[in-house]
This record gives sequence, C-alpha cells and structure tokens, in this order.
Amino acid sequence: MTRAATPAYRRLSVEERRAQLLTAALSLFAHRAPEEVSPEDVAEAAGVSRPLVYRYFPGGKQQLYEAALRSAADRLELCFAEPPEGPPTERLTRVLDRYLAFVDEHDAGFAALLRGGSVAETSQTTAIVDGVRRAAAEQILAHFDVPEPGPRLRMAVRTWIASVEAASLIWLDEDKRPPLAELRGWLVDHLVALLAATAATDPQTALVVRGILALERPDGPVGTLARRMGPVVGGAAHLL
Amino acid sequence: MTRAATPAYRRLSVEERRAQLLTAALSLFAHRAPEEVSPEDVAEAAGVSRPLVYRYFPGGKQQLYEAALRSAADRLELCFAEPPEGPPTERLTRVLDRYLAFVDEHDAGFAALLRGGSVAETSQTTAIVDGVRRAAAEQILAHFDVPEPGPRLRMAVRTWIASVEAASLIWLDEDKRPPLAELRGWLVDHLVALLAATAATDPQTALVVRGILALERPDGPVGTLARRMGPVVGGAAHLL
Repeated sequence: MTRAATPAYRRLSVEERRAQLLTAALSLFAHRAPEEVSPEDVAEAAGVSRPLVYRYFPGGKQQLYEAALRSAADRLELCFAEPPEGPPTERLTRVLDRYLAFVDEHDAGFAALLRGGSVAETSQTTAIVDGVRRAAAEQILAHFDVPEPGPRLRMAVRTWIASVEAASLIWLDEDKRPPLAELRGWLVDHLVALLAATAATDPQTALVVRGILALERPDGPVGTLARRMGPVVGGAAHLL
Repeated sequence: MTRAATPAYRRLSVEERRAQLLTAALSLFAHRAPEEVSPEDVAEAAGVSRPLVYRYFPGGKQQLYEAALRSAADRLELCFAEPPEGPPTERLTRVLDRYLAFVDEHDAGFAALLRGGSVAETSQTTAIVDGVRRAAAEQILAHFDVPEPGPRLRMAVRTWIASVEAASLIWLDEDKRPPLAELRGWLVDHLVALLAATAATDPQTALVVRGILALERPDGPVGTLARRMGPVVGGAAHLL
C-alpha cells in the first residue's frame, strides 16, 4: 500500500510529477526488455491515470524509454566520479563496485539495451549510451595525471571499458557468477595488465604506469597481482 | 565497362544470380550505412533490373541487408581458422591480420553495423553478429589445448574480443590510425597481458599460459613484450 502514502490527489509540481513517472518507468525498464513495457504499465506503477502519462510523455513508450535511459545514464555517470586520492586501484575498485551494483540493479534493462536489436534502439539511445562510455573514459583518464592523454592511452582505456561492458553482460548471462567482488578484482587486474602492456610501446603510458605504481600499497591489488603472476610468467625465462 | 564482360542476357543459374546480387549488395553495404543502400542501387551495381532484385529478395532492403550480413559473417568466420601449429602469438598475428584487413575493406558498413541504432538492426542481425563473436571465441579457445575451457578463461577471451571490436571502431574513427601492424601488435600484447593477469587467479588459465610460453620464441611478441615491460614494472619492486 505504498500508493496510500502518496495519494493520487496530492498536487505535485510539474517537475515532481515528471520525476515520479520517470522513477516508475526506470524501475520497469530496469527489469524488462523495452518492448515489454507500455505507458499503461508506467501509469499503473506510478498510481496515476494513463492520460496523465501521455500528458507528460506525448511520444508514448519511445519517449518514456529515452527519458528513462537519459536518467539512468545520469545516475551511471555519477558512479564514475571519484576523488583523485589514495592508491589508484583502490579508487578504481570503488568506481567498479558502484558500476557493478548499477548493473546488478538494472539487470534485464541493461542487458536489453546493450545487446541491441531492440525496436526501441535508435540513434538517440545509441548516442546516450556512447555518452556514458565517453564520460567513463574521461573520468578514468583524469586520474592519470597527464595533461593531454594520447591516442594509445585513450585506446587502452576505451577498449578496457568495452571489456567491462562485455564482462557485465556475460556475468548477467551466467546468473551473476562469479561473485561481484571476484569479477571486480579481475577487471582491476585487467586494466593494470593492459596498461603495463601498453607501456611497453607507448612512452606516455609508461609514465602513467610508473606514477600508478608509486602510489600503490604492497597489500593492494597490484602487489597481489605481481606476486601471483610471478610463478606463471617465470616460465618465460627462456624468452628474455 | 565491366558490365559488358557479363552481359545481362547471360543466363545465370539461380545460385549464381543470387551470389552475384549478394556480392553487389555487400560491396555497397561495406561502404555505406544500411539506410543509404536501396534495392535500386543493388540492381544498378549488379547491372540487372530492379524487378530481378525483388524476385530474389522479395523482402527488399532488409532482406538484402540480412543476406549480405550473413555472407560477410561467413567470410569473417573463415578468417579465424588457423592451424594449431607454431608459436601461438604468430598464429594470433595471422588471424588478426586477416580480421583487420576485413575491417579495412568493409569500413563504413562494419562501423554502422557495430555502432547500433540503425533501423536495419533487428534481433536477426544481432544474432548474426553474436554468432561471429562466438565463433571467434571458440576458434581462439581451440588453440589453448584444454578439453573444457572454464568460465574465467572464456570470460578473458570473450572480453578481449569485445576489446578488439572496440579498437577496430576507434581505428576507423581515427582515420585508420595507427598503422594496422601497430594496432595488431598491441592487440596481441593485450591478450597476452590479459591471460597472464587472469592466470594469477585461475589455475586453468595458468596452465594455458605456461603452455603458450613454452611454444614462444625469444624474438617473438611475448619475448619482446617481456623485455620492454621490464623497466616499467621494475617500479613495482616496493610492492613485492
């Protein structure tokens, strides 16, 4: 009976009403494919009439979907903000924990959106998703403390973000296995390894990696990764 | 005047005609967004009448697009086949060279397809693209010489494939820079680094990495990567 707490006759401001409808829409789109959500469902979830939904979203389902996606994108971009303090992998761990919690919470909608092929997918929705990817890349690059990140460093970060998305979809497909903390730890290791490999051929990335290493703690992810990789890559002695 | 070499009145078999129309369609879809190719364009490129195109593809543009995509997917899957002989990174280099040549050749169509948001994108086209990704993963896993690749090894390979796709799109966006050989070398390093990092927490991947290292040559990509990474990760000594 949550509806009783916000009686339908309470006069909401235009902004409050819009926010209420968007929250209802987002909670529906989070757990179903966009095809399976109608403006009627949103009206019911928000405890308002169908005409009221159409008054705010005359474009119907597609407009609701794009507005809900825009609001989800805004929330997601907030996840990426992290103060530039402390060991970089600890910052990344906090960002990934927030991002993966978002994926967990919006599972079906996240999968439907990124998997593509939906009739609700338009150049507009694609632009919103691309904006989130760009924001994520900029936030990560901002921690690297270089005035002008070059193409190799940018490519490393952007391709890692694509990997994170792919890993999120695989994780959803596999009934949310492995546990989130394991997935997150592996994604951190992935970025560390990728930056180290990129540093081999890009002087700017080499500088960035040196800066990161100087800020890490022995018991942090980089130290642990280095100690665990030791016995494995020891098999490469004949290559040196 | 290539049209004179295959006069319109030459009687082609049904299969030959279909192949001729598909070749014409694929060459058009390779360099334009699907929205910008009409059955009329295909008729003109193939030197046949518009009704003939519709006789073979009564579904018009969408059917032509899906058939061209299916034929491109078949070609792409052939790129991934590589005999399991020699140093693994040399095999991967040959596969990536074929794949990147395909991306280069089908640039605009490849970008339009993978960027999404096109009206031509349907659950059908998404399924074709996913099939290519799955085939690529299976081909790579087959080189690892493990009877049953586990979830961590699969996730490493599948997320690396997502990175390769993202890198290909960035490469097309940036006017095909860096040179293909540089991009390919970096993608090889990326997989090596990712497998080494995954090996830190997954025993099966550790076995695979040991097997790969045993087959590599000192002057190959892994040896070169290890020698170049040395001075950079030397800065991690305080973490060990």
